[in-house]
Parts: sequence; C-alpha cells; structure tokens
Amino acid sequence: MAKIVECVPNFSEGRDRAVIEALVQVAERAPGVALLDHSSDASHNRSVFTMAGSPEGVAEAAFSLCREAGARIDLTKHTGEHPRMGATDVIPFIPIRETGMEECVALSKQVAERIWNELRIPCFLYEESAAVPERKNLAAVRKGQFEGMPEKLRRPEWAPDYGVRAVHPTAGVTAVGARAPLVAFNVNLGTSDLSVADAIAKTVRASGGGYRYCKAIGVMLEGRGIAQVSMNMVNHEGTPLYRVFEAIRAVARRWGVPIVGSEVIGLTPAKALIDCAAYYLQIEHFDDKKQVLENHLL
Amino acid sequence: MAKIVECVPNFSEGRDRAVIEALVQVAERAPGVALLDHSSDASHNRSVFTMAGSPEGVAEAAFSLCREAGARIDLTKHTGEHPRMGATDVIPFIPIRETGMEECVALSKQVAERIWNELRIPCFLYEESAAVPERKNLAAVRKGQFEGMPEKLRRPEWAPDYGVRAVHPTAGVTAVGARAPLVAFNVNLGTSDLSVADAIAKTVRASGGGYRYCKAIGVMLEGRGIAQVSMNMVNHEGTPLYRVFEAIRAVARRWGVPIVGSEVIGLTPAKALIDCAAYYLQIEHFDDKKQVLENHLL
Repeated sequence: MAKIVECVPNFSEGRDRAVIEALVQVAERAPGVALLDHSSDASHNRSVFTMAGSPEGVAEAAFSLCREAGARIDLTKHTGEHPRMGATDVIPFIPIRETGMEECVALSKQVAERIWNELRIPCFLYEESAAVPERKNLAAVRKGQFEGMPEKLRRPEWAPDYGVRAVHPTAGVTAVGARAPLVAFNVNLGTSDLSVADAIAKTVRASGGGYRYCKAIGVMLEGRGIAQVSMNMVNHEGTPLYRVFEAIRAVARRWGVPIVGSEVIGLTPAKALIDCAAYYLQIEHFDDKKQVLENHLL
Repeated sequence: MAKIVECVPNFSEGRDRAVIEALVQVAERAPGVALLDHSSDASHNRSVFTMAGSPEGVAEAAFSLCREAGARIDLTKHTGEHPRMGATDVIPFIPIRETGMEECVALSKQVAERIWNELRIPCFLYEESAAVPERKNLAAVRKGQFEGMPEKLRRPEWAPDYGVRAVHPTAGVTAVGARAPLVAFNVNLGTSDLSVADAIAKTVRASGGGYRYCKAIGVMLEGRGIAQVSMNMVNHEGTPLYRVFEAIRAVARRWGVPIVGSEVIGLTPAKALIDCAAYYLQIEHFDDKKQVLENHLL
C-alpha cells in the first residue's frame, strides 16, 4: 500500500483562462500526482486545485505550481472578493493513507523552505505546521492581506517562518501547512423552519459545546423550502460522520423533525464512509486497510 | 480511473511449499497485477490466490500461473478433501471497477482459448461465461473430478468449450469463467438458539424466497455461545448488504433477538460498504466514482 497525500493549493487568479490553463498543465504533468479537481471563481478571482499522490510527487507539484503562479500572477493588479496575500495564497498538505500529520507537517516545511530559497517568496507555516498557536488560523495569518503585509511583516511577532521580513513584490507571501482532510457534509431536515436547523447546528458544532471536529451552521435550501444543517467535518477520524448524523437525528426529535436526506459535497476519503458502514452494520474488528480490496491497489 | 478486474484462481496443491512458492513468484512478478492474498490448505491440498489489476495484466497472470501449475502439479498423484479436476482447477474473473461482466466473460474466453492453444489443457466455461445453463454451476462441471473426467468428456453434452475430448494427462481440465464479486458477511445474533439463526437464514436467502443474491445458513459460534447467520452475498450491487442486514433485524424481532455484531470475512470491494454508508446516512445523489478521493488514484 502506497502513501497518499492530498494537496489543495489556492491561487489568486480566477479569471484569466491562459494563466489557469498554464497551472492546470503544470499539475497534470507532475509525475506521481493526479489532479482530482480544479475550480475557478471569477468574483473571488481565485482558483482551487485538488491533487493527490505520493508525498514526494505532491511536494514537487506544489512547488512547481507555486513557481508558475509566481511567474504569471501579479498581486499588485489583483482584485477580488476573497482575502489573499500571495499569488499562491495557501498550500495545505493532507494525510490520506499510510501517512500521518507528522509527515505532512515535515512536507509543508520542506516546501515552504524551498519556496523561499528558490523563489524568494516568504512563507508562513499555519494549521498543524504552525510554530506558535497564533499562526494556526489561516485567517489570522492572512489578516491585512497583500497590501498590508509589508507593514505586518515588520512587526516583531510576524516574521515569516521562512524568508526575510519583506514580501515578494508581485507574488506576496504564501501560507504552507498541514491539516486533516475535510468532508463537507450537509443534513437536510423535514422542516421549512430555519431556526430548527440553527438550533441543531449550535448543539453539534464544537463552538456550541458539540463535537470537537465539527463546524456547523443552519441554512435554507430555498429551492426546496427545507432547512439544512451545513457542516464542515474537519477531522472525520476524530469526529466520525455517523456520530453527528445520529446526534442531529436525536436533537431534531425535540421538534418532531425528521432527517429527509443528506449531501456529501465534493471529495471525501473512502474511510469517512467505510467507518459509517462499519458502525451501522455493527461490523466487528473491521480492518479497512487489509479488507478493502482497492486499498491493495493504491 | 483505471479498469480493475479481480481473479481468484484455485490450484490443486496445498502442501508442497516449493510449488506454492513458485506460483507466488509468478503472481508477484506479473506486471500490472497485485497479489492481494494467497492461502493454502493441506487437508484440501489446494491453494487459493486473490489477484487484482488491469484486465490484460490479470489475464496474463492467470495464464502464466496456469502454465506454472501445469508444469509442477501432477493430478495423477493428487489426494485431498476438496473436489478437483485440474492442476489449475478454476479461474474466475470478477469485475471490480470501470468494467463489467461482459468484459470479464470475454476475458475468460480469451484465457481459456489460450490455455488450450498453448498448454493443451482443455477448458470449460462456467458461471456467467457458460455457453449453456448446465455449465453455470461449477460443482456440476467438476462432477466426476479428475479421475472421472476422461469418461465424462466423451459424453455428447460434455465436450470442452476449448480443446479436445481428452484430459491433459497430468494437468486435467480447467474451468474458466466470470462472476460477480462475493462478500462473505455474517450477522451475529443475541441468542444461543441455533434454530433462530436457521429460521432467519431461510427467510433471507434466495432459495427460501428471500433475496436473489444471498446465500445463507445458520451456524453456532461455539466459543461465544451465540448463533450466527452466515452469508455469501454473491452480487452486492444486486442485493446490497444493508438490505439483508435490515431484513435480518426485522425477522429477528419475531423472537425478540437483537443483532449484536457482524463480520466481513476477507476482502470486499469498497463499494459494498460505501453503498451502505450512503443508505444509512441518507446521502442524496452520491457518486462514488467521482466523490471518493481514492477512486481517482486507481
């Protein structure tokens, strides 16, 4: 069984097709890496790539993309709704299989060091790679954005983890880090009352005293006239999907509201779902690494 | 996404380590194929290999194994509890991903033809590859075994699908075919009464009017003092695991017996479990090919 690392770099270009296409080419040509998805948003003026492959392959691809983005994107001319501080704004590495957070942290440090050494773009380490708690949160690291970064970098507590206290003139600053895989999981309720979804979201999310690795809000699905608990499961091994699903079912009973469906948005690691099957089917001693056929082929 | 075919050849040698090791070497050296598992049973005097890979890779590996087994195994000297008719007794091809039964049937015919052309071992096609209904069931094809085969082959209805009406003198006859993947799934009951497991098994299995692709019997787990419904799910897409699991739960209620656990024995395709997660989590429009991250890497 091979190691698999996911990497989801964000680039500050969502409009210029030539630039986006050049980045896609770099990702598609990277050896040992599959470009699983890429999406660009014109109003955000930002593109998100999802790649996966060997640790070395993904690290090399992330660096090559950062070089390409640095050569083609000029942040002095960038406008868009999404906050940003670099041509390559953020590079998270995510352990998927036969690897762990530690290796992804090490990978993030190698790549950040190389980005500084070879491209002269200063880097911050964030999330699990952060050297201090104040740098864990990407929003805190990015605060001030590209325009405010020259001044921020001169403050004693905001020296970059790699590089000098001055932004790259056109490519800015990049945040590199490691984090757990994220599963976007929404649960649809048999009610048009948004306040029920709000109340449930509050009980299941970490900030409301709920599950540690669950972020949740209530939203209305206007087209269907039903309310939804919309969640980011930021660590599906720490807080499995079935646990919040059953918690939502139990809390919803308070209003006599049933669960009418759910959605998994975008990609999910297989294990997030296989763990649910093992729970509901009450499977004893299931070893997904050994017993799932496809795992032997990765 | 690449095509994946599984192949589970059975060889009539479960004692001689040198022969088994030679077969393992052939399987491990086959390009584009992973040997997922192999097990040998001395009293059966039989070895079962589980391989998976590209259709071409698996076909080539199956042929190479059949050649090696034919060169090393002499059925005139074979004794063992398990019925057998060939050095390579049976070769099933199983569609796992991005392929279907039709391609596996075609593959089985190619391999059977090549086994006859190059190795002079006559072949029967069985299961989904069978030319006539009487050859679907492997037990019917193998009836008479190696010793009775010379006479059986001369009967009008038992001409081999490939080859002459005479067995290979030492390697006998081989059955080649295509079938759906099999999941060995057992459900443990909170009772020591075997008759409850027997009664439940009868209601869920096809032969008892139950689910079409479910074979089931009741057994006692002596060490634990509980009864179990032991099943072979012979087509998990036709009859999903969650459907029999919920049927067992419902029928067991007749005796006030709870389900206390379950077992998946050996290997299972990921989809057999992911479909269960999608059912219990009520996921709408889940597309496992697109949304399961690892599927993009196979």
